[in-house]
Amino acid sequence: MAPRFTPLVSQLPATTPFVGPEALERRRGAPFHIRIGANESAFGASPEVRAVLTAELDRVSWYCDPEHFELREALARGYGIGRENLVIGEGIDGILGLVVRACVAPGEAVVTSAGAYPTFNYHVSGYGGRLVFVPYDAGYRNDIEALVAAARAERARLLYLANPDNPTGTFLPADAVAHALAEMPQDCLLVLDEAYAEFAPAGELARLDAADTRLIRLRTFSKAHGLAGLRVGYGIAAPETVAAFDKIRLHFGVGRLSQVAARAALEDLDFAAGVVREVAAGRDDYVTLAGHLGRATIPSLTNFVAFDLDSAERSQRMVGLLEVRGIFVRRPGVPPLDRFVRVTVGTPDQRARFAEAFTDALATL
Amino acid sequence: MAPRFTPLVSQLPATTPFVGPEALERRRGAPFHIRIGANESAFGASPEVRAVLTAELDRVSWYCDPEHFELREALARGYGIGRENLVIGEGIDGILGLVVRACVAPGEAVVTSAGAYPTFNYHVSGYGGRLVFVPYDAGYRNDIEALVAAARAERARLLYLANPDNPTGTFLPADAVAHALAEMPQDCLLVLDEAYAEFAPAGELARLDAADTRLIRLRTFSKAHGLAGLRVGYGIAAPETVAAFDKIRLHFGVGRLSQVAARAALEDLDFAAGVVREVAAGRDDYVTLAGHLGRATIPSLTNFVAFDLDSAERSQRMVGLLEVRGIFVRRPGVPPLDRFVRVTVGTPDQRARFAEAFTDALATL
Repeated sequence: MAPRFTPLVSQLPATTPFVGPEALERRRGAPFHIRIGANESAFGASPEVRAVLTAELDRVSWYCDPEHFELREALARGYGIGRENLVIGEGIDGILGLVVRACVAPGEAVVTSAGAYPTFNYHVSGYGGRLVFVPYDAGYRNDIEALVAAARAERARLLYLANPDNPTGTFLPADAVAHALAEMPQDCLLVLDEAYAEFAPAGELARLDAADTRLIRLRTFSKAHGLAGLRVGYGIAAPETVAAFDKIRLHFGVGRLSQVAARAALEDLDFAAGVVREVAAGRDDYVTLAGHLGRATIPSLTNFVAFDLDSAERSQRMVGLLEVRGIFVRRPGVPPLDRFVRVTVGTPDQRARFAEAFTDALATL
Repeated sequence: MAPRFTPLVSQLPATTPFVGPEALERRRGAPFHIRIGANESAFGASPEVRAVLTAELDRVSWYCDPEHFELREALARGYGIGRENLVIGEGIDGILGLVVRACVAPGEAVVTSAGAYPTFNYHVSGYGGRLVFVPYDAGYRNDIEALVAAARAERARLLYLANPDNPTGTFLPADAVAHALAEMPQDCLLVLDEAYAEFAPAGELARLDAADTRLIRLRTFSKAHGLAGLRVGYGIAAPETVAAFDKIRLHFGVGRLSQVAARAALEDLDFAAGVVREVAAGRDDYVTLAGHLGRATIPSLTNFVAFDLDSAERSQRMVGLLEVRGIFVRRPGVPPLDRFVRVTVGTPDQRARFAEAFTDALATL
């Protein structure tokens, strides 16, 4: 007898937000030499964090604090907000799932840019929400006016905005985000995904009120702090919103080592600042390389750069040509972004090897 | 303006499945000396696992394999089943959430023992399911006949059975479980939580078919393997069931370090076997202690023993008396189990110190 699932789950398609590089390695039968496709940090975790993690192995058999007290306390101090404004999750992905589950009933609308974060869309579909897509503008920026207009027209429950954006790398200044929040429907939540916040100029990030019940901003230890392997993200939101998540979240989902590592990372912000400087230098290298090769790039304030290959067909072939050369990069799946190849900033050595392989591959394209 | 949540989430009560020992420490203003309340392993993780984890810190900035390929492959080999029979999650808790989400539509019934696992109940309520409770039998065993009868009467979607059981420690032999499966409604899924399987005699564990679409069995690296701090559990189920989870699970929720540690633990089964022997000796110590003190215990095939304090009021006072002495234990919250105090097997030194404190506390009770 076939197992019986809910009508919602039964009708969901089989889908995968991302195929990991490990799956590609299994398919091609060889490991990648350079892994610059998933916007992971090429600069690892801080030595302090590593030392704290090594010491914490003495307590690896203990469960975590399900209240994430010390991590939330440290974040609250850093931001000058309350612990009650903070939710911790299994990366931003985990919190996106909570946001959708808490706010979107089946059939309700959610607005996002066409080609933005697939995992957010996966959650919306998974909870029965209705995705409304808005094209990027001509500069590959989130078209904030059009997003807000769609949210109004569709009576959307959520408006998703990644800023700095992924997969484009573009950035909207604080005023644009504040304007959007002012113009949005009153009962719509702005989901501001700031996974790449550390790479943008601090003074230009949205200045928003943590008590605002119409906003959640999401940040992560997976990028500048180099802790993607431990999956810790957090959301800053109104206490009422955090309290709603507390009713449904997986209380022991973010393990002890993850919490301890994240807290240690907050004690070593110089390390993250160094990574940000390295990444800025690497972006410059990529832009210079693109210039030499007559390729356009999208101006990026993240840890990656999107190279224009002129067509979807050529960008797809480029991903394959780089894969053959042992280099993992990704390509956005949705037009018009699918003419780009998105390349994470690697170490100086990785950048040099990428430059060589990319130049070589372009010649054969 | 108040944030707007779904009707389901709005009506959920604020609730916490478990208050962690860290919260109790904050409340009392001092750390516990002996942490034997959450059924964590007192015997840590294997030195091999710790070495692998230390080495993996070089890749802590990399995301995990979202397909958990190598871990599933290793588990599949060990069990003689297919990778497609295996789902990996953020502990058993994470998989319980998936099971409920996939199978229980709002208002549908779920059957469990009264006083069994609070986190399972939390998930059922969180997805709008209707909990149907069945009392334990006179021997504090899951009353399997009554559970099956309730599942039939209520047209239940899920029947939850922890075996060995928590918080009682009791165990149903393979034949009883097989009989229940045969008698259950055809469209009800048996959720067999085997978190404590390693502590039961291997030959007496349920022998069940991994292709059976009416069953999922759940196991964890948090107990005998000592990896609670990394949160890795797995489910063994029919491929159709695993495929349904793949449509809704958090693909990157179980991090790289967690997966690597779990796989390393499977390479060092001697370590887990040693823990199981230590735990058996510790249970014997607790039973002997109880005998000396004229206290009954429930026969346990887990890593804990429930001591009878004769009344809910006395067991509650005992938890407080032990807390004052720096010892963390837990007490089941639901009658008639609330007359017991549940004590995890500690190291020999911890057991000796518990024996002293318990004896002393009993004298003042």
